[in-house]
This record gives sequence, structure tokens and C-alpha cells, in this order.
Amino acid sequence: MTFAHPLPVLPSPPCSLTSVRGLRAAGVAAGIKASGAPDVALLVADEPIACAGIFTQNKLAAAPVVVSREHLARSRGHVRAVVVNSGNANACTGEQGLRDAREMCERVARAIGCAPHEVIVCSTGVIGHALPIARVRRGIDSALQELSDEMAAGRAFLRAIMTTDAFPKEAGELDGATVAGVCKGAGMIHPNMATMLAFVATDAQATPGELAHAIPAIAASSFNAVHVDTHPSTNDTFLLLATGRADAPLSSARPAIERVSRRLAWLIARDGEGATKVTTIDVRGARDDRAARAVCDAIASSALVRTALFGNDPNWGRFVSQVGNCPEVGSIEGLSCILQGITVFEHGAPTRFDRAAASQAMRAEDVHLDFVLREGSGHATLLTSDLGYRYVEVNAEYTT
Amino acid sequence: MTFAHPLPVLPSPPCSLTSVRGLRAAGVAAGIKASGAPDVALLVADEPIACAGIFTQNKLAAAPVVVSREHLARSRGHVRAVVVNSGNANACTGEQGLRDAREMCERVARAIGCAPHEVIVCSTGVIGHALPIARVRRGIDSALQELSDEMAAGRAFLRAIMTTDAFPKEAGELDGATVAGVCKGAGMIHPNMATMLAFVATDAQATPGELAHAIPAIAASSFNAVHVDTHPSTNDTFLLLATGRADAPLSSARPAIERVSRRLAWLIARDGEGATKVTTIDVRGARDDRAARAVCDAIASSALVRTALFGNDPNWGRFVSQVGNCPEVGSIEGLSCILQGITVFEHGAPTRFDRAAASQAMRAEDVHLDFVLREGSGHATLLTSDLGYRYVEVNAEYTT
Repeated sequence: MTFAHPLPVLPSPPCSLTSVRGLRAAGVAAGIKASGAPDVALLVADEPIACAGIFTQNKLAAAPVVVSREHLARSRGHVRAVVVNSGNANACTGEQGLRDAREMCERVARAIGCAPHEVIVCSTGVIGHALPIARVRRGIDSALQELSDEMAAGRAFLRAIMTTDAFPKEAGELDGATVAGVCKGAGMIHPNMATMLAFVATDAQATPGELAHAIPAIAASSFNAVHVDTHPSTNDTFLLLATGRADAPLSSARPAIERVSRRLAWLIARDGEGATKVTTIDVRGARDDRAARAVCDAIASSALVRTALFGNDPNWGRFVSQVGNCPEVGSIEGLSCILQGITVFEHGAPTRFDRAAASQAMRAEDVHLDFVLREGSGHATLLTSDLGYRYVEVNAEYTT
Repeated sequence: MTFAHPLPVLPSPPCSLTSVRGLRAAGVAAGIKASGAPDVALLVADEPIACAGIFTQNKLAAAPVVVSREHLARSRGHVRAVVVNSGNANACTGEQGLRDAREMCERVARAIGCAPHEVIVCSTGVIGHALPIARVRRGIDSALQELSDEMAAGRAFLRAIMTTDAFPKEAGELDGATVAGVCKGAGMIHPNMATMLAFVATDAQATPGELAHAIPAIAASSFNAVHVDTHPSTNDTFLLLATGRADAPLSSARPAIERVSRRLAWLIARDGEGATKVTTIDVRGARDDRAARAVCDAIASSALVRTALFGNDPNWGRFVSQVGNCPEVGSIEGLSCILQGITVFEHGAPTRFDRAAASQAMRAEDVHLDFVLREGSGHATLLTSDLGYRYVEVNAEYTT
């Protein structure tokens, strides 16, 4: 028996965070990870740039999240650098954790000549262990030495933020204003520790206020539409940055920002710790958008649905019965369910369909599972990953 | 690589449903299951006995649930028989399904000489397929021939209600009034189709009204405290029956009824389609009982928690971060987490504990995961199963 699911070659655009004019980056190995893989990443702007962020809502927010929220507020969204370490989440680390997160910002600020509150800090990795701060200091110092605007430097940044990721996640568009983004994390039903960090940058012109106004909707259609952020981890962070080096206003770059963010979100679901596919759950005709999202969540959070997706099993009973369980749904009499374009349930009753053909259609990297209710015009879309043997393997033995 | 987890020998009390005076039972193979295993079960009382039931709240309730609700209402809880088929849930089967469920009751009623509404009907198995009614008829006819009050007949009833169960589930107490119960189903994060049927009978004296009054609390501390009924399947049914053949009043039998029901619920969680253990999640000190239950649900529904339980991984970060995600929790500053008696998190911060010893302590059939908040006196307890390779194996290939 083998559980190997070869990952497809993912389209890697010829760009990285450093493709955005005004940004330099670096990624180095500082020995935080036992594996010796890169674990300190640094992104620096030559002058203050606009920044907005969305952070975890978990009450157990990690020290870097607490510090970054403070810094964004104090700097009113004008930042000079982002410093990241992987291998240790600096979460559940008390006062010492806060001191360490502040020290990371101070060290970068002193070197590049800015105020500490102009530096944003992120950490990802295991929680409940004190940051090995001596190593982090050395890592920051060598990253400062290696800062570059070359594409390779942006790629080094990306590699240094990864933890359990099966592959690097980047996306970008170079037409018009440049937009480039990277992220780390694996989509799953519930939070891994320190699961998602995402950085999307553009050289379009934007004020921090414009970014802060735009970021909720961008997140809603991307990172918050993966079944990961609904159960936020202690460290989740999404930063949107605008260097203003291009003539373009934010409005002209916004569609590209949304596409890049959605692509990154898709990559997170695609990783999904053993995922073999990404399933897009689409619900229309619910009472309202909130009800549609509740149905999406109920379906995506079902281990039975997710194992059926893994097994290429067109088990519509599992899909529609989850709709029947939603308090937000009044009646399933009008319910239809369409799996990869095949109507498997219509107006509250199963259809006759070719099971083998439907199962074959599920053997795809992109699976679409659509539901239509007849209760209103509510609509929601959610990405989720399937649940297979590798998920258990990865998650049953993460810390021991 | 092997996924075999040998099941322990479970204590099987020397009783079955037929130990309750006034009940005869039978279980036969009627060819509904392709395997040829028993699939029609019948329980008959010589005269009307008191009955109360709790049924699925899924809006996709199966035909037998619809019919049984009707019959219980019409008979005011005075019933003569319960007829069950496994191998087919008679769910999502439209008008024909309702006709078939009614015919099952009528056939039994005619044979034993009662009104159809004095017969309760249950089905369990795959959904969306018409009941093979000719086979069901033949099964009912031969079950009627084999009715007996011998223990073997009660056991035959039990075998005939099983579907994916890894082992039969029965429990009973013979001191004072006799209480005996059987059930089928496997605890899981979300509903399998037609997942739980439970029948608990006593020869104590009770009116239908007394049973109906008692059953919600009995279910709340047993079948509704397994992480299965919170996401009810299309066919879930729990019947409580009292034959009145003993002198004892319901009040004297009630503690035994509760213990038997809890034991059956534990067996459901223990089965759990590949489960290797039962974890009892206990939350105290929440704002109120509802908040405590919400925390239990959040923890039990996390695939990350459940894989950690499977992997004997004392990954307290996954446990406590789920508490931090609950909107019903105000603050985690006072939170403590105790795993198998080992305090792994105290007053909002991790403790130093022996990981290897904690992991060893998790290698038990009964695992206790306790949480203490400092926000009130709310309390809740929930049973859940772990999530391992076998869960994926069982559920990825259920219908195909």
C-alpha cells in the first residue's frame, strides 16, 4: 500500500516579492529549525511604504501578532520592514515572548535606520517554546547582509517562511502595476499551529487607509475562503503592502491583487497536508450570504465529506445530509447538488447518474461541488482540501 | 505498514433485549445486505408497552423516522413491536419510501394482531436506494416465525441491526428492575448515513408520558454526548421501552437506564470506524453549560486534535488553541488543560511536563482530556473517538 500522491508541477510565475519595485529581501538559515533549513526572512523597503494587515482572532494570539498589531497602529500603516522566523511560533511564551518579538523589530530597525514600530514581525512553527533568540539575532544580522532586490532573494525569503509546506507558494502578475505574493500554510479543517502567513505586495500607489479599507474584502474572497482561517491559529497574518513606485493607483492593481491572493489561497488548500485535490464548494440560493457560508462551512468541516473526496466517491448522501443539518437552511425540498457538473441530487431527490463516470470526474486536481437551494439569493464559495492517509500521517506525529 | 488496531475484549453482560420480561425478538437474513449477513430484526411485546423516542433532527429525515414519529403520536406511546432493517436506510426515497415503511408496520401488525400505528419502524444502511421490499417482506415473515424470548433471540436482533459496526454493542443490568440495551453505530466527527439506532428496554413500570419526560436527559448524558448526534444523520433513532412486568417504578430503574445508555454511547465512540480509544472531553468553569458544550464540540470536531489523540501526541497547543477559537470563551488567561491527569497547561501558560510519560499515558483505551476555565460554573462532557488511518480507509471507500 502506498500513499504517495505525486504533486503536480504548479505554475510558478517568473516573479517574487522582489519583483515589486522598492523591495529588497533575504532568507537565511539560523539554526532555529533542527533540519538546518532556512528560517529567518527579511523584507525591507528603502523608505516607508503603506501596509495593512489582518491577524488571527484566536484569543491565544502569539507575541508577534500582539506586537505587529501595536506597530501597525502606532506607525499608522507606514512600515519599513517585515521580519519573519519559522521553526518557532513564539506563541504561549508569555512576557519573554513579547520581549523577544520586540527585540526582533528593534534589531532590524537599528540596522536600517527606522523606528521599531515601523517593523512588522511574524513567527511560525511549534508553540509553547521560548524563541532561541541568540540564533534569531544572528539570523537577522546575516539576512541584513544578504538583502537584495534580485529574484533569488525573494525566493530565499519564501523558503525561509515555510514549515510543513510540501511546496513553495507564490503568485504574481507583471502587467500594469506589479503584484507579487507569497504565503506559507496548508489548508485544513482546523488550525494547525501558526498555520498561515501571507504577504502580498504591489508597486501601485496606495495610502495605508486605502489598503486597510480594501483588505477585508480581498481576504474574504481568498484566505478567509479557505477552510483554514475560520478557525484561526495563534499566528495567522496576512499583510498587504504598497510601495507606490508605479504610477498606477490601487484601483487599477486591485483585480490583480485579488487574483494573486486567490491563487495563493488555492495553493494553501492544494497543499493541505496530504491533500490530493482542491474542492471548491459553491452554495447559491441560500436565505442570505451568511446562511450560504454556514452551509459551506458545514460541508467543508465534515470528515466524511472530505474522505469521500479523497476516495473519489460520489457519495451525495454525505454531501446533502450536511445541508440538512444546517439550522440556517429551512428546507431541503428545493435542494440540488452538482458534482463536477453532474447533477447527483435535484429538487430534494437523488438523480440517476453514472457513478463510475462521476468517480472518474472526481479524479481531478480541481473538484467543484455546487449546491443550489431555493430560499433566497445568498451565495458563498469556499475552498477545502480532502482528507487522506497522508493527513493522518502528517498530523498524528507532528511534535513527538 | 499495518493499520490493524486489535480491539479489546469488551465486557458483554449476560443479557440481551429478551432479558426484559415481556419481550420476544428475532433477527434474520433476508438478502438486503449483499454480504448475506442478518438484516431484518423484530422486537415484539405480547401486549402494548410504553415507548418514547428521540429521532434525528436532520431535515432529510428518512421515511421510517417520519412514519415512526406519526405512529408514536397516534398510539400515544403504546406500542406492540419494533421492526428494523439494515443494509438500506430507506432515506431520500420519496413517496415510495413512505409506502414501504408503512407496509413494514402493517405486515407486522397484521401478524401479531395490532394496529399499524402500534408498530415502530427503523432502517439503516445506504441512502437513496429504494428498499428491496419483497426481501423485506420475506424477512419479516421469517422473523415472525423465529420470535423467542431466549437470550439468543435478543442477540440475533442485535446482529441484524448492525452495518459498519466493528463489534456488537449491548449492555444491561439485572439487579432490581431489568434494563437491557443494544445499539448500532460508530462515533465520528460528522454523520455517517443512518448512523445510530439504540433500543433500551426495562421491565419497570412507566407510562409513556414518564418515559417521554425522562428520555431527553438520558439522551443528553449518553447518545447526545457522543460526537455523533450533534450532526444527526437521516435515520438516528433512540427508543426507550418499558414493559411494566416488574414491580419497580421507573424512578428505581432510571439510574440503571442511564448507566446502560452511557455504556452504549461509549461503545459507539469506541467503535468510531477505526478508533483506537475513547476520549472523554470534560470542560468546567465555562460561562454556562452551553458555553462548556460549545468548547467540547470545538475540541471534538477538530481533525488536528483527533489525529493527535490517535498518534498519542500530547500536543497541548492543538487542544488549547481550539478553546481560544470559541466565541463562547471570554479569555484563556485562567485556562488549564489536564491530559490523563497530567497538567499540561495552567492558568494560560504551558507547564513543564514529561512528554514521553504523557504520550505513554495516552496509549490507553480511555483517555481523559479536561479543561478548566475561570469564567463561571458551566460544565459539559463529551465522548469522541480518535482519527487514524482506518477512519480514512473505512470512509473513503464506503459506497464505491
